[in-house]
Amino acid sequence: MASPGSGFWSFGSEDGSGDPENPGTARAWCQVAQKFTGGIGNKLCALLYGDAEKPAESGGSQPQRATSRKAACACNQKPCSCPKAEVNYAFLHATDLLPACDGERPTLAFLQEVMDILLQYVVKSFDRSTKVIDFHYPNELLQEYNWELADQPQNLEEILMHCQTTLKYAIKTGHPRYFNQLSTGLDMVGLAADWLTSTANTNMFTYEIAPVFVLLEYVTLKKMREIIGWPGGSGDGIFSPGGAISNMYAMLIARFKMFPEVKEKGMAAVPRLIAFTSEHSHFSLKKGAAALGIGTDSVILIKCDERGKMIPSDLERRILEAKQKGFVPFLVSATAGTTVYGAFDPLLAVADICKKYKIWMHVDAAWGGGLLMSRKHKWKLSGVERANSVTWNPHKMMGVPLQCSALLVREEGLMQSCNQMHASYLFQQDKHYDLSYDTGDKALQCGRHVDVFKLWLMWRAKGTTGFEAHIDKCLELAEYLYNIIKNREGYEMVFDGKPQHTNVCFWYVPPSLRVLDNDEERLSRLSKVAPVIKARMMEHGTTMVSYQPLGDKVNFFRMVISNPAATHQDIDFLIEEIERLGQDL
Amino acid sequence: MASPGSGFWSFGSEDGSGDPENPGTARAWCQVAQKFTGGIGNKLCALLYGDAEKPAESGGSQPQRATSRKAACACNQKPCSCPKAEVNYAFLHATDLLPACDGERPTLAFLQEVMDILLQYVVKSFDRSTKVIDFHYPNELLQEYNWELADQPQNLEEILMHCQTTLKYAIKTGHPRYFNQLSTGLDMVGLAADWLTSTANTNMFTYEIAPVFVLLEYVTLKKMREIIGWPGGSGDGIFSPGGAISNMYAMLIARFKMFPEVKEKGMAAVPRLIAFTSEHSHFSLKKGAAALGIGTDSVILIKCDERGKMIPSDLERRILEAKQKGFVPFLVSATAGTTVYGAFDPLLAVADICKKYKIWMHVDAAWGGGLLMSRKHKWKLSGVERANSVTWNPHKMMGVPLQCSALLVREEGLMQSCNQMHASYLFQQDKHYDLSYDTGDKALQCGRHVDVFKLWLMWRAKGTTGFEAHIDKCLELAEYLYNIIKNREGYEMVFDGKPQHTNVCFWYVPPSLRVLDNDEERLSRLSKVAPVIKARMMEHGTTMVSYQPLGDKVNFFRMVISNPAATHQDIDFLIEEIERLGQDL
Repeated sequence: MASPGSGFWSFGSEDGSGDPENPGTARAWCQVAQKFTGGIGNKLCALLYGDAEKPAESGGSQPQRATSRKAACACNQKPCSCPKAEVNYAFLHATDLLPACDGERPTLAFLQEVMDILLQYVVKSFDRSTKVIDFHYPNELLQEYNWELADQPQNLEEILMHCQTTLKYAIKTGHPRYFNQLSTGLDMVGLAADWLTSTANTNMFTYEIAPVFVLLEYVTLKKMREIIGWPGGSGDGIFSPGGAISNMYAMLIARFKMFPEVKEKGMAAVPRLIAFTSEHSHFSLKKGAAALGIGTDSVILIKCDERGKMIPSDLERRILEAKQKGFVPFLVSATAGTTVYGAFDPLLAVADICKKYKIWMHVDAAWGGGLLMSRKHKWKLSGVERANSVTWNPHKMMGVPLQCSALLVREEGLMQSCNQMHASYLFQQDKHYDLSYDTGDKALQCGRHVDVFKLWLMWRAKGTTGFEAHIDKCLELAEYLYNIIKNREGYEMVFDGKPQHTNVCFWYVPPSLRVLDNDEERLSRLSKVAPVIKARMMEHGTTMVSYQPLGDKVNFFRMVISNPAATHQDIDFLIEEIERLGQDL
Repeated sequence: MASPGSGFWSFGSEDGSGDPENPGTARAWCQVAQKFTGGIGNKLCALLYGDAEKPAESGGSQPQRATSRKAACACNQKPCSCPKAEVNYAFLHATDLLPACDGERPTLAFLQEVMDILLQYVVKSFDRSTKVIDFHYPNELLQEYNWELADQPQNLEEILMHCQTTLKYAIKTGHPRYFNQLSTGLDMVGLAADWLTSTANTNMFTYEIAPVFVLLEYVTLKKMREIIGWPGGSGDGIFSPGGAISNMYAMLIARFKMFPEVKEKGMAAVPRLIAFTSEHSHFSLKKGAAALGIGTDSVILIKCDERGKMIPSDLERRILEAKQKGFVPFLVSATAGTTVYGAFDPLLAVADICKKYKIWMHVDAAWGGGLLMSRKHKWKLSGVERANSVTWNPHKMMGVPLQCSALLVREEGLMQSCNQMHASYLFQQDKHYDLSYDTGDKALQCGRHVDVFKLWLMWRAKGTTGFEAHIDKCLELAEYLYNIIKNREGYEMVFDGKPQHTNVCFWYVPPSLRVLDNDEERLSRLSKVAPVIKARMMEHGTTMVSYQPLGDKVNFFRMVISNPAATHQDIDFLIEEIERLGQDL
């Protein structure tokens, strides 16, 4: 493992070989290397020279990059064509890169240099001896650097420095001790696929300009529908920019299915529509209702049991109540894996109610959908096959890089009817290929980022069984955590029983609070514990875990595990760290 | 320039050195290379061995990768730890990569291998001797490969092959002769920045997990507002997933500004709202109106002049008409750079009308916004400073990799009021830093991809003057094209006069049609010319340009130039190619 701050491609530093005292060795190599074609010679020389002079440990200020390129040739030609010279980025600008004439060599060297910075970050991300976060307050970061945009260009040396600086202050979301969000981890195949996606730099709207990606979207969505349990994987779907938009799509399509005239006439032409979702559901349902002109007052929050699951009898009661008022229930959004508790609504009971009252059943499985990949855990989503639509974010539990969210729809063609506008400049009807692959008109977006390739490539690399192993491991880790703390002194569980997802919700009660009565003062003091511990975690940079209040529960920790890099030891570490940082409170 | 199909990092192929006949040379190198730390030894060995055996030219079928790794060690250990062995990807799986124990070496080798594939693609993208597209019909691609997802994992050799196959059929959107969309080109700094973004793998909702990116969004949006001309760059904004969503945001915020109760009460609580935009405007305005419950019937399309510019007197007439009916005009969306003609609506006249009738003025400058970077061309957007909101997509004219679209809003705080839902699990009010940097609640999305970094880094690398040079060059090329064809035999312009943007719209009239009267039969035959030429272009793979009908104009070519790689010779080539492929029609 490379030590933090050292040149990653450095040599001779650990075993004494490579002779950093004797640049002549490097020079000899370099001469041979120049015989290689395709830029590799340049790259080798940069490696050999550049890092022979190791950069100093960067101590909190601007990372030292300039010093690592001291042995530059001094010709000042752009691009430097000296036969054995290394690349000196301080003399190069973006205009020297491709498509510039003679831009190939500097381009390859520059991109390789960036890649080295990225590889160094990747390795550090998994290194428990590095910090999860090098925290600075906003005003500190704003004052420490000049981030402003100017008229004049900067040279590539400065651009490389910006890359290093940006990563220096980045949160290592792939770190085994980063538990802060539902999306954690850094999958190497997914990362490679995302790099490829950036390089292909295209748009999902037509087969014409994204043939392979369009086909992969077709194949992948079909597979996801098969796993949901729709016969033959039939139906429709789209990769959308996140679960909130996927949920909004569901609401939009459900409304259109019941009242297609809403597309032309707007909400004025339809009765008052009511959507139902649990009080623990994701806030995006309300956001969507506000945007779609339905209004947040028309989203009825159904009561949950103590584990955070929607209570079906309350759902039925509220549906009847709405109907009595003359309103039209049009959507029930059940949650499979709530954000805070990780609860799974009883989908079979919800499906029965939706069938009885002819209401569109949506399942927000943004967080819980991954469990469908596990033979051991998929029973928690029993009934999902009866849904009309499902949100499923592979960027959460399945560890696909951000963003990758799918909205799956049971009825084929509905998305197209709902959203199409027949733009003749994109969806020409006299093209020479099968137009059913021009899927862009079913989207709300016009241009659409390619989000499918990273999921598809990871799926090929892991197989369904690989995702299953990943999911099972994360759930086992959550159970391990639960078993440690459920009877441990100083911990109180927010709800009883084994976690159904990887969410483990608990209070840490510092010694000074353990002796207090369970009154207002204790609650008030307890509510301040998690924020202080979290702030200390960030300042120390050792780990990160989220906290929040919910309903009448004061601030508690919500531990989630979606990163396959985490181990039992990391869970132990988290507990020790909470106690270390919180015992004096 | 590496020849297509050869190993990019190959050596000895062009100048006879490197001795591919004598693997002993490579082996000697490799032994030395193994002294390097950090995985570079491995990489060097892979380079030296792997490509000594050059892969055969891949002739339309599965790219030959497996053959390039013949000299593998045969130990079959995972990962192979033989001191001098190269990496044999056929023995490695995703589970051997980080975070696997001992995963560092194979990870670095694998990612470097992917990078080599990407670099090869980058170089080919700019090489005029390679095809823009290797076209296959959907059923051909589906039959030629097995794209299906299976239970079992594939090895990394296969994964690398998928990367090659995917790129083999990708459209080279950075190719100097790719003119098909408004988004073309492949900027090297932007690409590097997008790779970094993927590697950082985080989410824009809070400062907590994206400190630098949140600050860069703040800095960049402010700079864009300054350029628009709002005093001190004040106001608000967001990077959204594309221009369609940015336009939808504008409509959403305009509605909220006039009727804030719509958020809770929905459209039922407000009078009938009417939006106005030109008949040449982007279809996303109607899509947004359909989604927001306003209805497409409430989007009034204003007449354009023969150049595609909105006619202000018609706008005023339609506003008065709507008011007379008791409807409420709430938004005018003027277009700065229409999709097909590249027309700029008269913003000052539109602003006067919006002011007179107290209507929200939105400017959809998704395509034309880039011209604000040019002192020579920004007058075309005069009046944009009077808008209440502006859509501006740097991923179009400014060449930023997809996606990068900004919605700028003049009034600060409105987006937050309109969209916020106060999710307590994300936007905790007792965090230890300045919460004004937790900007996620103003978005419709919850998780949001980092789209700002590539724009910010390109801006640093090019400076505003670099963007200006890019824009001026593309507009000069469009004028060059216009000057060539305006009087050339066989060409008819769709509208008269110099192009205002890079859009040049024209018919190519094959010799057989030139003798016909201008009657129905000629129009019918002319309408089939562009689709046939386009299909032939794609089959030959030499260039790509879009076509469409518009109003009563039959199919015509719409040439657009946003790629700084294009030259006068590429424009000449396009003309020659249209004539070569179309002269027999």
